[in-house]
Amino acid sequence: MRTTAHPAAGSLAHPSGRHGGDDPLLRRLAARVGPAPLRYGLGRATLTGSDAAPVATLRFRDRRALLGLIFDPEVRFGDAFAEGRIEIEGDLVAALVAAYRALEGQRGIRWLGRLRTWRWHTRRGARANVHRHYDLGNDFYALWLDEQLVYTCAYFESPDLSLEAAQVAKMDLVARKLGLKAGETVVEAGCGWGALALHMARRYGVRVLASNLSSEQIGYARERARREGLADRVEFVEADYRQIDRRCDAFVSVGMLEHVGRGSYGALARVIARCLHPHHGRGLLHFIGRDLSRPLNAWITRRIFPGAYAPALDEALRGVLAPAGMSVVDVENLRPHYAATLRHWRERYERAVAEGRVGFDERFRRAWRLYLAGSEAAFRTGSLQLFQVVFAPHGSSAAPWTRAGLYRGEAGLDWNAPKS
Amino acid sequence: MRTTAHPAAGSLAHPSGRHGGDDPLLRRLAARVGPAPLRYGLGRATLTGSDAAPVATLRFRDRRALLGLIFDPEVRFGDAFAEGRIEIEGDLVAALVAAYRALEGQRGIRWLGRLRTWRWHTRRGARANVHRHYDLGNDFYALWLDEQLVYTCAYFESPDLSLEAAQVAKMDLVARKLGLKAGETVVEAGCGWGALALHMARRYGVRVLASNLSSEQIGYARERARREGLADRVEFVEADYRQIDRRCDAFVSVGMLEHVGRGSYGALARVIARCLHPHHGRGLLHFIGRDLSRPLNAWITRRIFPGAYAPALDEALRGVLAPAGMSVVDVENLRPHYAATLRHWRERYERAVAEGRVGFDERFRRAWRLYLAGSEAAFRTGSLQLFQVVFAPHGSSAAPWTRAGLYRGEAGLDWNAPKS
Repeated sequence: MRTTAHPAAGSLAHPSGRHGGDDPLLRRLAARVGPAPLRYGLGRATLTGSDAAPVATLRFRDRRALLGLIFDPEVRFGDAFAEGRIEIEGDLVAALVAAYRALEGQRGIRWLGRLRTWRWHTRRGARANVHRHYDLGNDFYALWLDEQLVYTCAYFESPDLSLEAAQVAKMDLVARKLGLKAGETVVEAGCGWGALALHMARRYGVRVLASNLSSEQIGYARERARREGLADRVEFVEADYRQIDRRCDAFVSVGMLEHVGRGSYGALARVIARCLHPHHGRGLLHFIGRDLSRPLNAWITRRIFPGAYAPALDEALRGVLAPAGMSVVDVENLRPHYAATLRHWRERYERAVAEGRVGFDERFRRAWRLYLAGSEAAFRTGSLQLFQVVFAPHGSSAAPWTRAGLYRGEAGLDWNAPKS
Repeated sequence: MRTTAHPAAGSLAHPSGRHGGDDPLLRRLAARVGPAPLRYGLGRATLTGSDAAPVATLRFRDRRALLGLIFDPEVRFGDAFAEGRIEIEGDLVAALVAAYRALEGQRGIRWLGRLRTWRWHTRRGARANVHRHYDLGNDFYALWLDEQLVYTCAYFESPDLSLEAAQVAKMDLVARKLGLKAGETVVEAGCGWGALALHMARRYGVRVLASNLSSEQIGYARERARREGLADRVEFVEADYRQIDRRCDAFVSVGMLEHVGRGSYGALARVIARCLHPHHGRGLLHFIGRDLSRPLNAWITRRIFPGAYAPALDEALRGVLAPAGMSVVDVENLRPHYAATLRHWRERYERAVAEGRVGFDERFRRAWRLYLAGSEAAFRTGSLQLFQVVFAPHGSSAAPWTRAGLYRGEAGLDWNAPKS
């Protein structure tokens, strides 16, 4: 890691102002990002990206970090930040929000880091992807997730709810949208550490078959089921979603579609079609999506979430629900809730880092800092969305009459709607 | 119109039973429709379409009606019914529900009557289409719509609401999803007889620019605005939606997208993009849709609604909202409510027919009977859906925190959500 400023930098020093810095690379970078309330610094040279007061300064330790950024901004920025060759002085999330907003106007730039993805979503590839992210160790996630280890968007019924309460509220929201009734059967594809499956079984009296590829997570979930006396009602299987073949009253998948890959949407559709009861079945997909179809940030898909893809809503409908023979009943966009969830995670994470509890090396810790802050910025700016889509088989006689039951302390959506 | 049974028919008479009828055309028709609890009759020959007890009998007056049905079922069925060459003995809606369900399994059959549609959605074509349906005379629609002449899906907060109350509830639902506040401006594309525009101005204190191509409807709406003292707040313009160019806080279109035509989705996207305020704007599209992309019933598009097309949800998102730069905030499927609305319309229509108040000729009256009953059956079986899609510009800072305000007697969605 080089931290020496380039010898030429000092001679170009200017205090600030849009045209203040004369380092050509700084100027090139500022042009690439577009007008943004950011200050860029290299040695003593600085440049401000717009007339607005800068919210933060991106300080480059060397010209190599700066140069890489101009050619492959997504991956190189992430790597240089993780390696400490870029420092953000000021609010990291605010800096990333400013950069995202500016980059949204710059067509083409997001496509640079695009990767070949064909081998990611084979069953073997899927297992490797899941292992890389989710098997970092339960202890690591316990440092900054809620006490139940729910690693998906929470639901803050009011903004001042605790993260713990908001994750329970999310699980209730899901169960109430599905209108679960005691004795029914639920299939959950991609169950994380099992919190939702256990919650549905305990609170709604259903039987659950829950699958996950991560052996660490499945081990944790089974142990928890045993400890809480729910092992007879919740079956955790270490399996690919494509292996699930069980008739159910409700199908649910929270935060898995992002890892399925577009090439496998048809396979997921077939699972839903064969599992869900054709007359009274109903399902819910909860996933990170986008307004327009485009690849995720290349650094995220390379360093954090191999193989991840967040579809536009219409892609998910056309790719999964239409071929599964499903009718869309309800869609809710929970984007502000994911920004709030990520703020909680980031604050807990930074506390754990400050107290020396995180472990790993500095590069890992900085990479995760950037991942959490960048994700929060993406939900704040609308670069990412969070969709909950409720569906039922085409022509199903079950259809909720209104959504009022979700908000009035009733049992949730009433799928046995009065016949008109 | 010929009502004499074909001389050969009598000799084939059988009382009933699946294999009871031996007329080869009846057998051919039953095979084409697929297993359905329907009885088919031609002269004294009858045939039952499945082992289940038939819900109704389709009685053919002559072999020509039967023959046409086999080759072009959608258009020929409608025409033969209108001409009285097919009678339905029993519940008309139940018979159509049974037929729709059976036909859903018969691939290909719905495509037979497909029409060339290229010239339908030019501005001139759009005007002709609108004139043909909506300028039948306000008096005609007043016979069977609610007192405010709302010709779109109502919202039955509870199933026993009157049609009048349910139409008001629908208008409130729309206004509350948009979170309208006094003094704001609204653009409405395709305003019918003006009920929603006037309701929003009166109840929510907004200013509205409302457009419609039907001169009869615009004349009626303007007169009503004058009478109710709202002419200074609601401007009704006889114009194509493509001519609208006014910055607004909210954009709404209820029941127009069905007439826009896929080739013009981009034009509608441009109208939304240029009208809606980029920071705090929000919009709502309310339209008849489908689970899968396919043409509407060919008889409907030929005889009742020239040029109509009901898109799959993903088609509307990809065709209109994505190119308009919009983010989907909320989708609600109101399918059961349209079945209920159509039942009300049909009952009122049949009462008016029975009391000799409808006018026109018998063929027209029978065609409209079939149109109303067929539409009700289509919503009951899920052949048609009703989507309300709420959206806001990509990256907009306005995003409702939850949907609870829609159901708790508050002002509706709160678009100035607390910042997380």
